[in-house]
Amino acid sequence: MNESKNIIRDYVPEPTLRRLPWYLAHVSLLNSRGIKHVSSTALAKEINVDASQIAKDLSVLGIKGKTRIGYEVCALEKALLDFLGFGKPHSAVIMGVGSLGAALIADNGLANFGLNIIAGFDVNPDVAGTVISNVPVMLPNQAREVIKRTNAEIGIIAVPAEAAQAVANQLVDAGIHALWNFTPVRLLAHNDVVIVNTSIYAHLAVMYNRLDALKQ
Amino acid sequence: MNESKNIIRDYVPEPTLRRLPWYLAHVSLLNSRGIKHVSSTALAKEINVDASQIAKDLSVLGIKGKTRIGYEVCALEKALLDFLGFGKPHSAVIMGVGSLGAALIADNGLANFGLNIIAGFDVNPDVAGTVISNVPVMLPNQAREVIKRTNAEIGIIAVPAEAAQAVANQLVDAGIHALWNFTPVRLLAHNDVVIVNTSIYAHLAVMYNRLDALKQ
Repeated sequence: MNESKNIIRDYVPEPTLRRLPWYLAHVSLLNSRGIKHVSSTALAKEINVDASQIAKDLSVLGIKGKTRIGYEVCALEKALLDFLGFGKPHSAVIMGVGSLGAALIADNGLANFGLNIIAGFDVNPDVAGTVISNVPVMLPNQAREVIKRTNAEIGIIAVPAEAAQAVANQLVDAGIHALWNFTPVRLLAHNDVVIVNTSIYAHLAVMYNRLDALKQ
Repeated sequence: MNESKNIIRDYVPEPTLRRLPWYLAHVSLLNSRGIKHVSSTALAKEINVDASQIAKDLSVLGIKGKTRIGYEVCALEKALLDFLGFGKPHSAVIMGVGSLGAALIADNGLANFGLNIIAGFDVNPDVAGTVISNVPVMLPNQAREVIKRTNAEIGIIAVPAEAAQAVANQLVDAGIHALWNFTPVRLLAHNDVVIVNTSIYAHLAVMYNRLDALKQ
């Protein structure tokens, strides 16, 4: 890939966006081991993605490798962090502070990836009023005021399935622009609301099916 | 879809497998509300998937709707639960009992979807020796014996990125057939090992990019 290319940030295809964090994870490992350069061929071997695909994906960032030297590890790590938005804080609230919601609040990994959870909300009076990892948990009727005041843009949904759509509507009404949905429910919202589904149960279904297929 | 079709369980395309849990979530809600029948058109409207796509997906289960009546809600729920493997227990161990690992152990939602976590392993001596939601946490050097003894088939990986590949190798050596990878690392394993990636950080990258695109 010797052609120069401008950075296109507006709308990157999802398959590319899902591969970029793999590259980031690996160049971060290389960086921590003091390695200075990596070729797309070496990267390809380590993460089992075609070298030409890697070069194409990284060209989206306006980054290209040098012949015989490859990519500069440190510069590539920084470019990936910036491009993926992991270096910039994004404010979020979380609806539903059960076991999953509480874990997301406590997971400091998320903060390292630019997610700043500022408050949690739960209908359970035993949970509302508590503080988890410095994050206050409140009753859901306080969500609107907190979202307005803090300009939080991301709403994480970790409530039971039957409450998911109502909570999504409530968040969007309060000014939230992106819903991160951990429930198995398919949420409906206007086109200008970003919905990202992390359905861990759907992943279980894929795993069970592949395991069964192995046994046949 | 009036043609009769045999159940094909061996290898269902991933997009279908990812949609089936949406249908399950919605028919479970309908069932809990006492609704007896649902048409693919009504289902399509509620979850924003094409009615013909729904009929095609459900035909994989050998289930078809009746003209003018639609699908029987209760039978459809049971067929989806069985087909997706959520009704059958699958034994798993979890490597890495940090905030995410501990949350996965504590999440009783997973048990409802057929995942039976029998043990956790962590290098941290303060964590090893504890019990979380009745699940014992041990040192990693005990993993092999526990996996062999219990015939656990799924290994959940929730360790730091730099340890992910070594832990994956250890699990496969001990007899694990499926790796559920929560790290951002792309794991390498033999073709006969199932790898399912739940990279929540990759989902964050997609969300940030879509949010940026909205603002432009």
